[in-house]
Amino acid sequence: MGKKWYVGADIGGTTIKLAFVSDAGEIVTKWEIPTNKKDAGKHITTDIAHSIEQKVKDLGFTREVLLSIGVGAPGFINMETGFIYQAVNIGWVDFPLKEQLEAETGLPVTVDNDANIAALGEMWTGAGEGAKDLLCVTLGTGVGGGVILNGNIQHGVNGMAGEIGHYTSLAEGGAPCNCGKTGCLETISSATGIARLAVEGIHLYPDSGLNSVYQTNNSITAKDVFDAAKEGDEFAEKVVTEVCFHLGLALANLANALNPEKIVLGGGVSKAGDLLLKPLKKQFERFALGRVAEGCEFKIATLGNDAGVIGGAWLAKQK
Amino acid sequence: MGKKWYVGADIGGTTIKLAFVSDAGEIVTKWEIPTNKKDAGKHITTDIAHSIEQKVKDLGFTREVLLSIGVGAPGFINMETGFIYQAVNIGWVDFPLKEQLEAETGLPVTVDNDANIAALGEMWTGAGEGAKDLLCVTLGTGVGGGVILNGNIQHGVNGMAGEIGHYTSLAEGGAPCNCGKTGCLETISSATGIARLAVEGIHLYPDSGLNSVYQTNNSITAKDVFDAAKEGDEFAEKVVTEVCFHLGLALANLANALNPEKIVLGGGVSKAGDLLLKPLKKQFERFALGRVAEGCEFKIATLGNDAGVIGGAWLAKQK
Repeated sequence: MGKKWYVGADIGGTTIKLAFVSDAGEIVTKWEIPTNKKDAGKHITTDIAHSIEQKVKDLGFTREVLLSIGVGAPGFINMETGFIYQAVNIGWVDFPLKEQLEAETGLPVTVDNDANIAALGEMWTGAGEGAKDLLCVTLGTGVGGGVILNGNIQHGVNGMAGEIGHYTSLAEGGAPCNCGKTGCLETISSATGIARLAVEGIHLYPDSGLNSVYQTNNSITAKDVFDAAKEGDEFAEKVVTEVCFHLGLALANLANALNPEKIVLGGGVSKAGDLLLKPLKKQFERFALGRVAEGCEFKIATLGNDAGVIGGAWLAKQK
Repeated sequence: MGKKWYVGADIGGTTIKLAFVSDAGEIVTKWEIPTNKKDAGKHITTDIAHSIEQKVKDLGFTREVLLSIGVGAPGFINMETGFIYQAVNIGWVDFPLKEQLEAETGLPVTVDNDANIAALGEMWTGAGEGAKDLLCVTLGTGVGGGVILNGNIQHGVNGMAGEIGHYTSLAEGGAPCNCGKTGCLETISSATGIARLAVEGIHLYPDSGLNSVYQTNNSITAKDVFDAAKEGDEFAEKVVTEVCFHLGLALANLANALNPEKIVLGGGVSKAGDLLLKPLKKQFERFALGRVAEGCEFKIATLGNDAGVIGGAWLAKQK
């Protein structure tokens, strides 16, 4: 057999990430194209098809080198039909993504949501490598998740599995969440949530280094909080403790039910590394059963923005 | 093919439940034998083997009618080897249950834990019938659980999956749990937990009907609480609300991550029926994402004490 590649595609609101990936999960080449949201996103599949064709040509190959495509898309997806019910950021409503991309490319297409393909990517060649039971948590603007058990991403009965960000951390008195509920984990442990906690509490700590940040920028970011915590700033440490208390409790409760081998943390907030991991593990161990905690390892995601295209390729490879 | 049956066995601390089960999940015959705990439980497999052989004979068949055995046992189990690390109630330590029962019966044996085979039984022919993604929760002396996804019972990395009873409901100030932690769901929503809440609070409600129960019996049971709640007793209703708040929150948080089609409630407390289900669903819907709540149906377990032997047979049938 000559060279054979899978195509991974990760469709976002601004750009579409694409890659050709080898059977071993190595990226052969990767590139991006802008997400064309004109006409409710109806040109996107044509753009992807043309871009793939062009790239194969640029590399001096023919399209026979490509086996199949795995695509991640934001929004609610019918995993069997590859139909997107709704992807608000793109404009798709009832969009036949799988069908249309197959028609445009002549290749078999598998569709899943973007958080799930990122989780699969980390499982295949990233921080989750070798584990069959893992929880992936993305701490970014929001909190996303992927639940992989026995090597399979879980979708649940109507594609909602993995919505770890909407774990209710505060049953009463929590901040409003985009989902319509209040007190979701996402309102506390996302980059946005951490920034909110810092801004809300800063007036109580006039001596905190974060005060000058706030006065200069009229805002505090999650990174500011971790930077200050690193310097031993009392208020910043309080915010980190609160964030890790809620995240650790939520993950321990999920772990008591699922007994994962690894918990992989990704997204911007995970760049805090040990500043996040150390207090997080401490809280996790308070609330997880001893044997569950022993069996579970925390890892920072390693694939960054490539997780989606690698996971897409993994998905393509499975089908 | 003539008549062929699977054997389901459910080993408990006091009795061993046994049944021959048809390919369609119907119980052909069921019976019990006492659990012989002498000599650290080493006679149990012989007892089971003899009892099965006798029963086949009593029915006028020969052992060729039996295909395989599925056994549920309490304690920590290595699912691949069928080795019991420890079953405190029985006395087994590092006991080769699968190996020994295969040697004694000449039949293939599959082993899982007792809570898991009960969950599989409910999935096969009970309240979970037709669902592939379900959470089973047993509200008895403790709170047990089974997580079934894509039709498979989840074990996790070291056999601890399904420990829903040790979901931490109260991070601080909760009652001590048998597991060594405090504030576990089990300390609130088990029959024992409900009784504890009633006894602890009764002095604040001198007019409650539960007061006379307490004075007569020097105790209050979970059944007393639901009986009083049915009559509109204010204190009893308060206890039920507290129980359902914590149970509903825990189940909603698990459901947001797993998106189950059904949540099956079993055990003594589930006999309260709508007195439990109505307030529970109300709390669940507060904390579950809309689409998750829409996709999820609550059911009371229907197989009672037969769930284990039917689930054991299902397990036998899969292998």
